[in-house]
Amino acid sequence: MKKPVVLKLGGSVITDKSREFTPNLTNISRLAKEIYRSGLNSLVLVHGGGSYGHPLAFKYGFSGEGVEERRVEGVSEIHLAMSRLNNIVTEEMIKAGVKAVGVHPSSCIVARSGKIELFEDEPIKGMLRCGLIPILFGDVVFDLERRFTIISGDQIVSTLAVKLNSPQIIIGTDVDGLYTRDPKLYPDAKLIRFIRLSELEEIRESIGESTVTDVTMGMYGKVNELLPAIERGVTVKVINATVPDRLFKALKNMEVLGTVIVRG
Amino acid sequence: MKKPVVLKLGGSVITDKSREFTPNLTNISRLAKEIYRSGLNSLVLVHGGGSYGHPLAFKYGFSGEGVEERRVEGVSEIHLAMSRLNNIVTEEMIKAGVKAVGVHPSSCIVARSGKIELFEDEPIKGMLRCGLIPILFGDVVFDLERRFTIISGDQIVSTLAVKLNSPQIIIGTDVDGLYTRDPKLYPDAKLIRFIRLSELEEIRESIGESTVTDVTMGMYGKVNELLPAIERGVTVKVINATVPDRLFKALKNMEVLGTVIVRG
Repeated sequence: MKKPVVLKLGGSVITDKSREFTPNLTNISRLAKEIYRSGLNSLVLVHGGGSYGHPLAFKYGFSGEGVEERRVEGVSEIHLAMSRLNNIVTEEMIKAGVKAVGVHPSSCIVARSGKIELFEDEPIKGMLRCGLIPILFGDVVFDLERRFTIISGDQIVSTLAVKLNSPQIIIGTDVDGLYTRDPKLYPDAKLIRFIRLSELEEIRESIGESTVTDVTMGMYGKVNELLPAIERGVTVKVINATVPDRLFKALKNMEVLGTVIVRG
Repeated sequence: MKKPVVLKLGGSVITDKSREFTPNLTNISRLAKEIYRSGLNSLVLVHGGGSYGHPLAFKYGFSGEGVEERRVEGVSEIHLAMSRLNNIVTEEMIKAGVKAVGVHPSSCIVARSGKIELFEDEPIKGMLRCGLIPILFGDVVFDLERRFTIISGDQIVSTLAVKLNSPQIIIGTDVDGLYTRDPKLYPDAKLIRFIRLSELEEIRESIGESTVTDVTMGMYGKVNELLPAIERGVTVKVINATVPDRLFKALKNMEVLGTVIVRG
């Protein structure tokens, strides 16, 4: 099995975050074509929830210290919504010629206190061996301590990259990369083009939180979730996937605007 | 965890087999209400593919000795169709008050030569412990020998019943139970109300095949797939789930028209 690139497409890219249960079909369809054009056939895709996941996650108390019983009430609804979004993404991929197969995290992952404890990846490895592209998503999964928990797409990305010995993670978001300050609040924020893990600690405070409320805790949280992979030597590229051709260039290892994060 | 009943709802019950990609919403909705009314909260549901699965399975050569490359071509399309049907079934269950969660077999099962080789069931056990009802389906899964294979709902039912120590399997189909001959061809066919495994061999030839062509090989194939569970002492009830209240009575352990199959 060729070592796969792990690609995350954020909820802010593939959905309209201002309207509940609204996919951004323009972006999904364009990104599907960029993936197809890249010719890359060793790839795992993980997408976020956006307006399919976050409002329901809030409603059922998955942000912060929710009540377990309330969370269990929400599992059916949240998982069904995410499954629908996964089908939409998968369908657009197939239309573009990408051999996509939806994979449900809640069917193969068990968590403990919000962290992945068990992840059966043999089905994913089999798909990759056959040239198929598994498409996972941030999902609500059984948790041995909390009954149910939301495992973010970023945590899945990081775990998969380690399990599959991926050389590279690409994070497709709606900003150009990591900034010295939150660019949505401060116009003097500067894009960081390249950073080592050892330097990251220093600028963490200045990265701050996303302006859009997000159960995955914004950009700081995203980078934090990726640490286990970065520490093992996986290179992370953060790009703006709402801008045409950025993903294509990142997949082709061409020069592209964004932030590269490496170990060391 | 209370030992769950494993319920199969056949593709002929939940879809219109004569029209591609057409759910039988009347049946699904009624059965969802019967499950809710039964009050049973330790239940796993597995559904068939019907007009969502079988035409595509034929198209891509999954019946008989298909070509591996051709089968891999079909995986994306078949799994997406089945995922859609699963969402429809799950949605109707939720509407009726059943705490349903879709579980994708291709995300947690690996096969070898058409038989289940690996089945990660911890997520399903977790859901059951929280009173949720996992809903699986016959699916196209990675196969260590054949690249991809279709694992029937019946094989999943049998494997799950053994893994979860289920006392009982209920097979909801579109006939009243097992007959001495195929009732769709022979008007003198008699319904078998109770049969021991030791007697089954004698009447196997007379059961014959379903009149509707079916990649799961008809009623004989169905019973055959259930043998591992029956041999371990799981009681199988075959009922006609297209007739109102039969499923409700079976779930409540009330007297109901059908066939009971036991070991011994």
